[in-house]
Amino acid sequence: MKPANIGDRLDQVATPSLLIDLDAFERNLDRMASLVPANGKVRLRPHVKTHKCVEVAQAQIARGAVGVCAQTVAEAEAMVAGGIRDVLLTNQIADASRAARFAALAAHATVASCADDPRHVALLEEAAAAAGTTPGMLVEIDVGQHRCGVEPGAQAVALAQTIARSKHLRFRGLQAYHGSAQHLRDPDARRTAIAASADATNATLAALRNAGLEAEIVGGAGTGTFELEQQAGPWTELQAGSYVFMDADYGRNNAPPQFENVLFVLATCSSVARAGHAVIDAGLKAIAFDSGMPVIVTPKGAVYAGPSDEHGTLDLNGALLTIGARVRMIPGHCDPTVSLHDWLVAVRGDRVEALWQVRARGPAL
Amino acid sequence: MKPANIGDRLDQVATPSLLIDLDAFERNLDRMASLVPANGKVRLRPHVKTHKCVEVAQAQIARGAVGVCAQTVAEAEAMVAGGIRDVLLTNQIADASRAARFAALAAHATVASCADDPRHVALLEEAAAAAGTTPGMLVEIDVGQHRCGVEPGAQAVALAQTIARSKHLRFRGLQAYHGSAQHLRDPDARRTAIAASADATNATLAALRNAGLEAEIVGGAGTGTFELEQQAGPWTELQAGSYVFMDADYGRNNAPPQFENVLFVLATCSSVARAGHAVIDAGLKAIAFDSGMPVIVTPKGAVYAGPSDEHGTLDLNGALLTIGARVRMIPGHCDPTVSLHDWLVAVRGDRVEALWQVRARGPAL
Repeated sequence: MKPANIGDRLDQVATPSLLIDLDAFERNLDRMASLVPANGKVRLRPHVKTHKCVEVAQAQIARGAVGVCAQTVAEAEAMVAGGIRDVLLTNQIADASRAARFAALAAHATVASCADDPRHVALLEEAAAAAGTTPGMLVEIDVGQHRCGVEPGAQAVALAQTIARSKHLRFRGLQAYHGSAQHLRDPDARRTAIAASADATNATLAALRNAGLEAEIVGGAGTGTFELEQQAGPWTELQAGSYVFMDADYGRNNAPPQFENVLFVLATCSSVARAGHAVIDAGLKAIAFDSGMPVIVTPKGAVYAGPSDEHGTLDLNGALLTIGARVRMIPGHCDPTVSLHDWLVAVRGDRVEALWQVRARGPAL
Repeated sequence: MKPANIGDRLDQVATPSLLIDLDAFERNLDRMASLVPANGKVRLRPHVKTHKCVEVAQAQIARGAVGVCAQTVAEAEAMVAGGIRDVLLTNQIADASRAARFAALAAHATVASCADDPRHVALLEEAAAAAGTTPGMLVEIDVGQHRCGVEPGAQAVALAQTIARSKHLRFRGLQAYHGSAQHLRDPDARRTAIAASADATNATLAALRNAGLEAEIVGGAGTGTFELEQQAGPWTELQAGSYVFMDADYGRNNAPPQFENVLFVLATCSSVARAGHAVIDAGLKAIAFDSGMPVIVTPKGAVYAGPSDEHGTLDLNGALLTIGARVRMIPGHCDPTVSLHDWLVAVRGDRVEALWQVRARGPAL
């Protein structure tokens, strides 16, 4: 069921639900467009894994983004169905069925995915041949995240050559993402980490040029570090996603990124039986807790003590809360919180202005 | 999209997805029916917050359950729509809109919800009067969980009297649930906790009788303790839910409950670029991590090191994994893992026998 209707007052919105503060959302979009302008050498390709929402992607592209990143084939399909014409899958496709779906998308949009093994290349080549399309591929290199990616340098060149030799694929460039650097609390530690990523990327680009291969896209960066990648040289596209909503964890960085909190979990107080405490209707099934507890905005002073499946227990610390009263929180981590919900309730002031559907939510099909 | 079709082989099931081992599922149902028989003094009212699935609820009722528990109004609606005729909402309704939806359900099924404040009673009384129905209400008492519930004794009697005086409500009894006792690792600690819960419940029942009120239902218990509540005396209904699927956390109890693991997360290996490690397509959006890492069943020996949004990183510990190979895991906590998925893929041997929809998944609307 939809948690609200357009025109509803805030107090008519069902809970637990996700609110988007439209004024702050638009300020974040504007701020990013001024930091990473559409006519700059380095462009923005925001990641939709944060919002999974066509309307948000369209707003990002309207302010100059070159396209979007997706993390799952289902997200890519939802974005192309929503009219987005350029989607980079920042992930490896590891089975024939997803490869077939992705190759089919290439008939409708400019798409590319990543490889860190010849098997990824072979799977997409076979699917593209069957579909009669020519999707792009990037070589993912490990620039410090130690998750996916071949070693920078010779390994990357060999894989790029495999892509370039594939009849139904286009070699598009490098994926060079250091995600964990974004959450290093100290700005100097973030700077050092991204400088090392830049060195590894530059060395790989030089080796590619020696082999006669040009990287049209060098992608990477996230909300916690994108200005470092922007200044560093090798990157051509910045893949920040969280900037559009923000969350409590980025706020815990020293020198956090200069964006506003846009995404809020709205909950209802359901029990005040224990003195000094309250229970709300938002727990593990409504909020992600991997990056810590949500931060309570109202009632001021209350602290989210801990979740159970459908309940959250608050320490009130003197704040007042009655049964039926609303609680507004900033989730610890925006991406997996959004993925729990079907709808984003876009609010301006006290009024619901739009309902935006969360697409392809849940598992990474 | 559906992750499988009936008749598919296991290797055709899309990932990440949830598998139900039907043989083990049926053995768990049988075992519970033998431990808590339909003709016993204490009956089973299993909790659907574990599975959110009409087909599973119907299988439980077919083996003697008196009805089901739900934690959200949306779950209750889904169960009644699926033909379940007796639903206990083990939760407080705190707003007029959910009260109206719940009062409407009472026209189609026997339903009851919980109160720990006169406000809950007033909300449902007003909604029931408007709907022309007579839902039931239980008084929730705090028997050690320290989450919701009035103090046992006089406070509970006063609230029961408020319900009994309400023209459109029926007083049905007590909700006396000590959820956290189930995860005390030591069986003696669990026994001590439930003995104290029984004392508090018995004292409240005596006080109710003194006031001329009879508790037709005394509900509580979960998978980790239900045999203690069954033997203790005051309880008439056991609300265990997880027994039907089980999870890794119950396995970490000393003297864990004697049920089999039925629920598995199926994932696909997407990257093996780092020696000794592998990356799979199941992370925070496909598995709940609140009760620890999933336990990997195949490949044997591999350990789930940590999640990111759509990725899981494994330490292989000598296990072999190739790109596209499948990984089968027991999630740490079944309830919030199920809530991330749309479908349960019910498998017998190597074949998909049924697809069961997860209803009312996500937030507790």
